[in-house]
Amino acid sequence: MNCILKNENAIYYVCGYSNDNCIFLSIEGDSYLFTDGRYAIEAREGISKGEVVIDRDLMTQVSEMIKRYQPKSIVFDPKEWSVYDFDKLSKIEGVVFEAQEDFSHKQRIIKTPQEIKLLKRAVTLGLDAFDGFADFVAGQGIGMDEYRLKYHAQSILSYQGVYALSFDPIVALAHNTAKPHAQSTPQKLQEGDLLLIDGGVKYHRYCSDRTRVMEVGAKMDLALAQNFSSPKMQRVYDTVLKAHDTAIAGAKSGMKANEIDALARDVIVRAGFGDYFVHGTGHGVGLDIHEMPYITQKSETIIEDGMVFTIEPGIYIPNEFGVRIEDMVVMINGRADIL
Amino acid sequence: MNCILKNENAIYYVCGYSNDNCIFLSIEGDSYLFTDGRYAIEAREGISKGEVVIDRDLMTQVSEMIKRYQPKSIVFDPKEWSVYDFDKLSKIEGVVFEAQEDFSHKQRIIKTPQEIKLLKRAVTLGLDAFDGFADFVAGQGIGMDEYRLKYHAQSILSYQGVYALSFDPIVALAHNTAKPHAQSTPQKLQEGDLLLIDGGVKYHRYCSDRTRVMEVGAKMDLALAQNFSSPKMQRVYDTVLKAHDTAIAGAKSGMKANEIDALARDVIVRAGFGDYFVHGTGHGVGLDIHEMPYITQKSETIIEDGMVFTIEPGIYIPNEFGVRIEDMVVMINGRADIL
Repeated sequence: MNCILKNENAIYYVCGYSNDNCIFLSIEGDSYLFTDGRYAIEAREGISKGEVVIDRDLMTQVSEMIKRYQPKSIVFDPKEWSVYDFDKLSKIEGVVFEAQEDFSHKQRIIKTPQEIKLLKRAVTLGLDAFDGFADFVAGQGIGMDEYRLKYHAQSILSYQGVYALSFDPIVALAHNTAKPHAQSTPQKLQEGDLLLIDGGVKYHRYCSDRTRVMEVGAKMDLALAQNFSSPKMQRVYDTVLKAHDTAIAGAKSGMKANEIDALARDVIVRAGFGDYFVHGTGHGVGLDIHEMPYITQKSETIIEDGMVFTIEPGIYIPNEFGVRIEDMVVMINGRADIL
Repeated sequence: MNCILKNENAIYYVCGYSNDNCIFLSIEGDSYLFTDGRYAIEAREGISKGEVVIDRDLMTQVSEMIKRYQPKSIVFDPKEWSVYDFDKLSKIEGVVFEAQEDFSHKQRIIKTPQEIKLLKRAVTLGLDAFDGFADFVAGQGIGMDEYRLKYHAQSILSYQGVYALSFDPIVALAHNTAKPHAQSTPQKLQEGDLLLIDGGVKYHRYCSDRTRVMEVGAKMDLALAQNFSSPKMQRVYDTVLKAHDTAIAGAKSGMKANEIDALARDVIVRAGFGDYFVHGTGHGVGLDIHEMPYITQKSETIIEDGMVFTIEPGIYIPNEFGVRIEDMVVMINGRADIL
């Protein structure tokens, strides 16, 4: 299939190398990676498939190459291309550019055993870092504001710069946990606060993703079993945990993604918190932190062995608090195994 | 002017709030910010202009709103929109979507006194962090590899997480400084190495940007006056510094941007290093780390009071070393003042 790729992870997937300024062209059986002179050495060393073309003006080089081959059609993902850049491509005469949404993500939806190994390692690094963060909070966290706590979460998750982060982690306290994607504020950690952390780490470019909450007090860890002084908080936590466990226990290959979403959602709705579960139950994870399959109310994707995704139900009570519990699972032998 | 914005900084500029999933619509005198439920609370708290519309499906809501107003035309920036999202917009009947490249950047090219104050503060924070980094290198840097040095640069520039970084900083040693955008390598800092750092910090979302080099030895700081053991390195450094000083002293409001580029470039060409100055002399800085005006050989932009940009000439001798010196200036009373 003739295709043109612009997304960094899509390109890495097909040729084992990419950077923040490159385009990959697969055309009539040949492959080319276009990038600029800053990356000439590492591109030639890193690529596993195709020829490297170096130039400051990638789009002109790409256009020239396409004209040389005169293909009938080339597939592209309309989500990857800006109107501005695509306008240059579409000026090439005699070629049909065929929009196929998410075609790279669809190729990557079933993970290979090697990819699952890398994801597992990323998850383990993330888990150990969560333990490290809980210890850090227990030892030095009291009185520290959300900005500083997030900084230390970043340091611990990255193993002091050894690993890249999957995304900018979220560390939220008390009522700020009611925002699913809370931004840091100057509020300081106090004894008895609810603390939420959502973060992950990359291993060989594969991402991990995890969320835990805990009450800051005498005994602290980020395990699944948690006790809260507030009965309401305990009830919300137990509901979210039950939704999480129910979805993982009930997920089967062959189900539609929205059936897995329903497993978690039904628990929360039945407990009377349905209005407070304001997002989907999960998303695929791989080279991208968000990829297919999406585990949402609308998603009709059929779940298959080898898919990796998060299960992360949540309940967010405005101006009070929020709870989300997130793990990554891989479908193996028809069932969801926690990574 | 009816317009639709998707870029986070473009949206922040017009309404004082934005996040990573929002669209702003200015239509027939009314304004709307579309975002999803995760951001409902903070969007309503943060917005200074317009009404917040919360929905999971932003594009459908945006389309409905546009249909309700039936405007003749709406301006958009083709660099901000993916082919995929724009395709949904362009299906709305009776509306002309008018592509205007960089129209938000053009609106933001002259900074207000308040913006200059925020930029000045960002620059000062960055300067103090550079001093802190020089002290850190003097005390603990020898033997540390580029990954770790960069990690510590990030920590110091962010004041341990208090401030966001303008961009992922560059810390390069010895021959790695010859790459203008060097990526970290495992090489370790040795006495006598050339060290280059390029980094900045954000203050209330406004960026700073600075580059310095120094020889690692008995006396170390990141001031403009620097001494080098190697006469060649000293000659290159003095040439770059003269180019930097000449451009800043000679820049006047009313000049074209390429005339300012020429002020720096001529010094380097006359010294015989013209082939080794492989990029433009500078770029605008504001909410984006790279914005207008671009100070390049091709840029015809007329420089005016209130513009803020970098002056950052460099000389890069392949496989040997590179030197870049960068400061931010603001045009005031017709002259360039170092921020």
